[in-house]
Amino acid sequence: MTTTPIRTLPASLDTATALVGPALHEAVRRHLGLELELVVDYHHGWVEADGSPATGWGGKLLRPALALLSARAAGGAVADGVPAAVAVEFVHNFSLLHDDIMDGDTARRGRATAWTLFGVPRAILAGDALLTAAVSHLLGARGTGARSATTSLMAATQRMISGQASDVDFERRADVTLAECLRMAGDKTGALLSCASSLGADLLGANPALVRRLAAFGEHVGLAFQLVDDLLGIWGDPARTGKQVGADLRVRKKSLPVVAALNAPGADELAALYARPEPFDDEDVRHVADLVELAGGRDWARDEARRRVATAEACLDGVADDVRADFLEVTAFITGRRF
Amino acid sequence: MTTTPIRTLPASLDTATALVGPALHEAVRRHLGLELELVVDYHHGWVEADGSPATGWGGKLLRPALALLSARAAGGAVADGVPAAVAVEFVHNFSLLHDDIMDGDTARRGRATAWTLFGVPRAILAGDALLTAAVSHLLGARGTGARSATTSLMAATQRMISGQASDVDFERRADVTLAECLRMAGDKTGALLSCASSLGADLLGANPALVRRLAAFGEHVGLAFQLVDDLLGIWGDPARTGKQVGADLRVRKKSLPVVAALNAPGADELAALYARPEPFDDEDVRHVADLVELAGGRDWARDEARRRVATAEACLDGVADDVRADFLEVTAFITGRRF
Repeated sequence: MTTTPIRTLPASLDTATALVGPALHEAVRRHLGLELELVVDYHHGWVEADGSPATGWGGKLLRPALALLSARAAGGAVADGVPAAVAVEFVHNFSLLHDDIMDGDTARRGRATAWTLFGVPRAILAGDALLTAAVSHLLGARGTGARSATTSLMAATQRMISGQASDVDFERRADVTLAECLRMAGDKTGALLSCASSLGADLLGANPALVRRLAAFGEHVGLAFQLVDDLLGIWGDPARTGKQVGADLRVRKKSLPVVAALNAPGADELAALYARPEPFDDEDVRHVADLVELAGGRDWARDEARRRVATAEACLDGVADDVRADFLEVTAFITGRRF
Repeated sequence: MTTTPIRTLPASLDTATALVGPALHEAVRRHLGLELELVVDYHHGWVEADGSPATGWGGKLLRPALALLSARAAGGAVADGVPAAVAVEFVHNFSLLHDDIMDGDTARRGRATAWTLFGVPRAILAGDALLTAAVSHLLGARGTGARSATTSLMAATQRMISGQASDVDFERRADVTLAECLRMAGDKTGALLSCASSLGADLLGANPALVRRLAAFGEHVGLAFQLVDDLLGIWGDPARTGKQVGADLRVRKKSLPVVAALNAPGADELAALYARPEPFDDEDVRHVADLVELAGGRDWARDEARRRVATAEACLDGVADDVRADFLEVTAFITGRRF
């Protein structure tokens, strides 16, 4: 980790907030029943649990920003990508609502998770409602590619669900290979970012070769994002991550650097420690982090993230210069600032 | 309740089992990741929890049977309706997987529910995967109406989710009106049966007026089905329902006959008993059932179910005689045999 200063928000994210924010509100009103509006509005960060306006800040709308850029990459106007942006953000929030229940997470973006306030049933239903609304919204959009885009969104969603299922399974297994772990990360994180990065173009009926290149770009960015996230889960600065030092190690998470280390020669001590049932104290966490680093897990993850970003950039060859620059700025925001 | 003998299975249900059963298997293999296949196969009743072939019996495939009939109503072949039948059954099973978690139900169709065997995370994910697969499958089907049918399926799914959310809310409320309760039942049960009864026709690009009539048929059948189910939940024969006498009363369920009674004049004693926190013993259950009957809840529900069936039948005017007869046979199977 170098000490690159936190960059200001890319202009593309401001555009997404300005254009997609109101569209998300409107789409919730249009597609969802009144029963779940409060849960969904709360989860999006628009209201507090009692329905009063929220003072805080919703998500960063990274995926919507990518969807809007992909519409521009296909020669469309930014606004043409809005239905794709809304749909992909709905799918993202569907997954967050359900993942928080499965993982037992009680906080997200500095607030209590929906299931802790509204109960598991309503949080499950709110996720279901958002997934359903994503399909209705995208399929009802103008654009010759609405059917193709919806098909692509569902394929990505299915991969994301498989990835989360693998993640759940991996918790119980001691023999996870690096290839399995990379596949899981690709499914869980890469698939939706890949879809987001191409969905606007898909909706506009763009050349399939362009759609594929944009999808490949997002897939690599997604992997890089996961690698960086995993690095931060071990060596991140608590002041910046908002998590404990070595948060992922404490819960014995089989993150990419750890699995890389476990599968490297001479990782016996690390494997034994990870298999031990007793909780780690601060000293253990430091020691385990050192073992992961010594086995090459940290270097590998850092190098792999850089390789992925470089490959992602190469996928943008032929995209108009201004759009390419904006894609790269968002990529740097997602991954670069945190190396 | 008269003692009408249980009828044999309508031929339409045999057709559905023969045609749709294999298609469901194939669609699970095609759309879902390997990670969740066991959970989904178990839930469908195809395998035991250890993956060995199941000896029992899956669902009745009522909704698929209706979807196939709707394809015939539009002049198509039975086989033309199969993608619609698969999609609607997937949505039905998505809802069962999630509802069992929300309701804390430990048994369904005489077997342990999926979440009790595989855990809540995998059961949530299996439901999510089925909903996603339903969309992929229907949208990828041949038939000029694939986009229209998928839109219709999502609208029905959204209503079903709203209905379940209302049901969750009603548990905490003492002031549920009959109108609210009917709306909830329409959303929770009517919407998907309405969609099933028209989805095959929709997929084939049938005349919108026919699609609407078939949808209205299914909506009324759905309401009748819910009313009959609610009657059985109070006065059903345990030997035939597989539940305790007065099962719904024991859990203070705000079913339609109860809400009708609670909103009738002079229901003070019933209201007081229903609001009492102590569990009901057998004597209480008998007394509460009598109070519901005395307030007219039983007669109202029985009459309303009959009215709904009659209205449903009228919606089939103009449908070819053989198809109409099959629709009515399925209707009788769903509702009639249990009056």
